[in-house]
Amino acid sequence: MAQSLGVDLTSKRKRKRSDYPYHEDYRTRWNDNDMFHHINNPVYGVLIDSIINSYLITKCGYSTAESKYIGLVANTYCDYFGSAQYPGMLDIGLRVVKMGKSSVMYEVGIFQEGSEQVKAVGGFIQIWVERATNKVTDEGVPAWIKEPLQRLLKGGEQDPDRSKL
Amino acid sequence: MAQSLGVDLTSKRKRKRSDYPYHEDYRTRWNDNDMFHHINNPVYGVLIDSIINSYLITKCGYSTAESKYIGLVANTYCDYFGSAQYPGMLDIGLRVVKMGKSSVMYEVGIFQEGSEQVKAVGGFIQIWVERATNKVTDEGVPAWIKEPLQRLLKGGEQDPDRSKL
Amino acid sequence: MAQSLGVDLTSKRKRKRSDYPYHEDYRTRWNDNDMFHHINNPVYGVLIDSIINSYLITKCGYSTAESKYIGLVANTYCDYFGSAQYPGMLDIGLRVVKMGKSSVMYEVGIFQEGSEQVKAVGGFIQIWVERATNKVTDEGVPAWIKEPLQRLLKGGEQDPDRSKL
Amino acid sequence: MAQSLGVDLTSKRKRKRSDYPYHEDYRTRWNDNDMFHHINNPVYGVLIDSIINSYLITKCGYSTAESKYIGLVANTYCDYFGSAQYPGMLDIGLRVVKMGKSSVMYEVGIFQEGSEQVKAVGGFIQIWVERATNKVTDEGVPAWIKEPLQRLLKGGEQDPDRSKL
Repeated sequence: MAQSLGVDLTSKRKRKRSDYPYHEDYRTRWNDNDMFHHINNPVYGVLIDSIINSYLITKCGYSTAESKYIGLVANTYCDYFGSAQYPGMLDIGLRVVKMGKSSVMYEVGIFQEGSEQVKAVGGFIQIWVERATNKVTDEGVPAWIKEPLQRLLKGGEQDPDRSKL
Repeated sequence: MAQSLGVDLTSKRKRKRSDYPYHEDYRTRWNDNDMFHHINNPVYGVLIDSIINSYLITKCGYSTAESKYIGLVANTYCDYFGSAQYPGMLDIGLRVVKMGKSSVMYEVGIFQEGSEQVKAVGGFIQIWVERATNKVTDEGVPAWIKEPLQRLLKGGEQDPDRSKL
Repeated sequence: MAQSLGVDLTSKRKRKRSDYPYHEDYRTRWNDNDMFHHINNPVYGVLIDSIINSYLITKCGYSTAESKYIGLVANTYCDYFGSAQYPGMLDIGLRVVKMGKSSVMYEVGIFQEGSEQVKAVGGFIQIWVERATNKVTDEGVPAWIKEPLQRLLKGGEQDPDRSKL
Repeated sequence: MAQSLGVDLTSKRKRKRSDYPYHEDYRTRWNDNDMFHHINNPVYGVLIDSIINSYLITKCGYSTAESKYIGLVANTYCDYFGSAQYPGMLDIGLRVVKMGKSSVMYEVGIFQEGSEQVKAVGGFIQIWVERATNKVTDEGVPAWIKEPLQRLLKGGEQDPDRSKL
């Protein structure tokens, strides 16, 4: 966490919509706001969950009810740079920071319509396990999950475009 | 409630998008789904709150922080006809059923993108009180709230188009 | 709903803890509060869901993952008489208003620690269907669900103690 | 974050109830569960918010509506070691990891009744600012906030008991 508050933080604060290859818009809801008329912090966690699972379900064919492998969240984090509001529309961007053997590290940027400044940057590390045993297997991240996620490797060490430089 | 389950119910089940003069789209979120992979019932209440307050704030100039009068909810109800899902986009429609001296009765219809069948029809009765005293005053529903809401009186007894018939 | 706002309302406003045979305490959470520092209305719906399903799971042996029959909610309602708050502890009471062939009507009263006045009275009608088909069957409400629920028939027309009078 | 997943993680996984000087119990709710019948990750964030603000309000005299200084969250994190469940009761423990000039770092451990293994360890860094300007002032963390929080400095570098060793 020291790291998350150090080196990284300056660059995170400058995230732009174009740093993220996949986007979804989410309208804010009345109860997203807290007593200070700001979006509650855990709502950012809900939105991070929502765009990642939406991508897995609609682009990778993931079924939360039936797939043989499921993704468990090991660790979540979020840095806050400004406060989003209700009513309004959020533009959420997703990228994959790192693709491991059995884990995926995601980063999500949260922007509000009409503003360039990123409101929050967060994400999580997901471990892929066999549903029946809840254990990591030799399969690791299944190939049908891995392939569509690799398109989201933008700006990180594993970005194929970056390695061409 | 007997009434809500009787006469009314047949007509509510047939609600169409065009029965509602004002619309907003809300993308569903991961935690909207319950253990049966259906949208949790209270989420419909959240969406009802959200479209009504969004209209009050953006179309009537209502300020939850500063307006002299505020709207308190006396009673909520919702009838369920099908289950909406995550991931997906909801189309929410709003109308005003009845405009009273100091109360407003709203109805909200919830539709999922790609389907004609209404998923749920709910709403609430809102009483307008003075913020300082939490009491109804002679002002009733303030004129600057009432006027933009009257445009949403569609299909009910107070619908101006209906009275022209 | 006219009825819910008429005859009924006076008696609901007078509900006491002792009107409910089963109780659970729920501590309020930061994000339960809305911009007016009141508990958000849909939170009452969440609490109603929570105590009813908790009773079904822990007292009736209901399994949301495996039971052959499941309860679907047809209709929810809630009347508000005061505002509960965070931080604080809520005392929630549950009774069964009516046990039908395939439906159950529940009523839940919400009280805050340190106050006699009921904050809200709400509930729902639940229809028991076969999980595989989502249809009502001749079984109706399964016997193993019905029996423990009958202990909650307090103060209504089907209350066995009342019929002894 | 590398750090949060490295050195730290082994010790976090071993957290016991007695590592936390302040506790509150929160009953889980129906919609805390996700489609896998686990508590949704963002719910842990809600509980972290809830116990910290409850302590600030009830033990420090913090008023979210009126205090001259307010606490803004800069960064949240959570590591997950097991899954809590509905229905059930959670035992939440709070400690202060570090008290800075104008910031406080909190850690929260989440346990489920009947189990010794910690389910999740998370927390946040809070910056104290003047409400009127949203800026850090020379006051830093106000004294009336700081004093009751110092009682929660357990097991960290600033623990007064530790410095006596």
